Amino acid sequence: MPYPETTDAFVVTDIKKWSDFKRQEVPLKKFEEHDIDIAVDACGVCASDVHTITGGWGEDIPLPLCVGHEVIGKAIKVGSKVKDIKVGDRVGIGAQIGADLTCDNCKADQENYCPNSIDTYGAPYPDGTISQGGYSSHVRAHEYFTFKIPEKLDTALAAPMLCAGLTTFSPLKRLGAGPGKKVAVVGLGGLGHFGVLWSTALGAETYVISHSPNKREDALKLGAKEFIVSKDEDWAKPYKFKFDIILNCADATDKFNLNDYFSTLKVNGFFHNVGFPDKPLPSIKVQDFAPNGCYIGASHIGNRPEMIEMLELAAKQDIKSWVETIDISEKGCKEAVERVYNNDNVRFRFTLTGFDKVFGKRD
Amino acid sequence: MPYPETTDAFVVTDIKKWSDFKRQEVPLKKFEEHDIDIAVDACGVCASDVHTITGGWGEDIPLPLCVGHEVIGKAIKVGSKVKDIKVGDRVGIGAQIGADLTCDNCKADQENYCPNSIDTYGAPYPDGTISQGGYSSHVRAHEYFTFKIPEKLDTALAAPMLCAGLTTFSPLKRLGAGPGKKVAVVGLGGLGHFGVLWSTALGAETYVISHSPNKREDALKLGAKEFIVSKDEDWAKPYKFKFDIILNCADATDKFNLNDYFSTLKVNGFFHNVGFPDKPLPSIKVQDFAPNGCYIGASHIGNRPEMIEMLELAAKQDIKSWVETIDISEKGCKEAVERVYNNDNVRFRFTLTGFDKVFGKRD
Repeated sequence: MPYPETTDAFVVTDIKKWSDFKRQEVPLKKFEEHDIDIAVDACGVCASDVHTITGGWGEDIPLPLCVGHEVIGKAIKVGSKVKDIKVGDRVGIGAQIGADLTCDNCKADQENYCPNSIDTYGAPYPDGTISQGGYSSHVRAHEYFTFKIPEKLDTALAAPMLCAGLTTFSPLKRLGAGPGKKVAVVGLGGLGHFGVLWSTALGAETYVISHSPNKREDALKLGAKEFIVSKDEDWAKPYKFKFDIILNCADATDKFNLNDYFSTLKVNGFFHNVGFPDKPLPSIKVQDFAPNGCYIGASHIGNRPEMIEMLELAAKQDIKSWVETIDISEKGCKEAVERVYNNDNVRFRFTLTGFDKVFGKRD
Repeated sequence: MPYPETTDAFVVTDIKKWSDFKRQEVPLKKFEEHDIDIAVDACGVCASDVHTITGGWGEDIPLPLCVGHEVIGKAIKVGSKVKDIKVGDRVGIGAQIGADLTCDNCKADQENYCPNSIDTYGAPYPDGTISQGGYSSHVRAHEYFTFKIPEKLDTALAAPMLCAGLTTFSPLKRLGAGPGKKVAVVGLGGLGHFGVLWSTALGAETYVISHSPNKREDALKLGAKEFIVSKDEDWAKPYKFKFDIILNCADATDKFNLNDYFSTLKVNGFFHNVGFPDKPLPSIKVQDFAPNGCYIGASHIGNRPEMIEMLELAAKQDIKSWVETIDISEKGCKEAVERVYNNDNVRFRFTLTGFDKVFGKRD
């Protein structure tokens, strides 16, 4: 029962053996008039994939599960009501594949906060089918969550923009990153490197705060004006009231002295989190916010207009994410998720490629 | 060595006997050219006074200490460089009495976040004198922190606006409370009742969330559209994505299920704290903010333009704070702080009055 009923997928079948991928057919939702079928050519490897398959965000995941939500491929089938995508278009999908599109949030371009949002993998569709991700031959997606990839962008480099890129772009946009603003990006990993790229592209003066002195050169190459090592106990002192926005992309926030970070914010500034660590934040007193009148918060991916704007910005400014490609296979998937888990020399993102070699030409 | 070298004050001399006030002379800072001397006629009793004298915010307080930072009185002496205040004017001072007025924050109308800010009581002036508050015959204040009281406002009712009023008005203003916005005020005490008054006056649709069902009538009288009892386990469910701003004026935030509150915020909404409890917030995970893309934070009083705007708004809309007056004396001060500490039927603010009876006419 191959495509169009199923997709040929690399799946995890047991969270205790979370890096043992098996190739097997998994069912696709029923094809509907707003759907698009995509023959996958590349899929970014996101930390979310690893949090999910290891059970870090909860052990109750539907198995077998095919992860991957930074997908680029070719539209090979297009529903009768699809407006903007044609068969043959190069398209991408990110971490969200469904929403009711009728609620107040959806109507306000906040579909990423729709209470009936459907994640690209591991989430039930109304018909009970579980959504399956992009470590796979095909993905079926609603047109609202399918994006044309601008011609100038390379497939392997654009793939990680679809989740990690949007997740960092959206809060920077909403918090007003741009000329005259100072942004500090904390943690230079997959998310952080996009934070620096977007912040710089939007015209903000960009700083990187990192525990790892050896990331200085990368930070400056990515466009940062200054690199701040947060290992030194007094690191924050020279930066009092300096930053409009701190974009926290680190995973070790539970070990932070948050007061140091807050002290570097301008009055009413934001400490905005985009990574979702397994552990809680350090204990906070209301008083900790008072000296800078500041806020802490987080966001969840971004909306459609932001995705389109980000891809156009990347094309216009020729922004290149830093990507290492790995050919998709059981072994390739294993290597990718293990290296992300171990933070093993990831600079700064993996994209699984070589889909034609495994799955053949699909159209 | 009476006034003008000292003020005749009701002071606390021991935090273990924090409600035993003694009348004694305490030194005033040297009179300078921007200073104004005020013969006090009324002083609000703020929860800060109680947090301070009980050692709740730290046991290291300068003694003897005269608290009180919601002061209204008559200007009886005006420095040579003072611009807008004349002898005989009715003026007020709030919780801040000094700042360098030269730093970036001061220049940006953020003097309430000046690193060299001086609190109205218990803070050292550059010359080493400790600032002393308004449970006292006189206060000496810099003109920048001295405000004309609009003629229409009653002295006893206006006094608590100078700290509790401004502390709630400033964040509501900055977060855009006004027509078309929905504001929920949590906790109907001294701060909360101002939150409702201002939010309503600014044109926002205002809700009160409280643990105490018996505050319903007061909430509606103050202008709330709806009163929500947060004792019921499912209280938040009907209010998903409802409020632009939650203004948290409660002291028991450590016992809150913050996720319930966050769930009622619009996307990118604010849970803004204005009370400073002695205990930390409940444990928070970054993920807790994600479903609503929301923020938590706090502020510290407000700035001069906000103070002026608030007093003008109160005069224009004839806004009356709910105040019980107590005559100043050792006994009166004791009763006031003990009733605030015990939350003993305070609806919603005390103002110490009758200063002429104790200190005589002063000019």
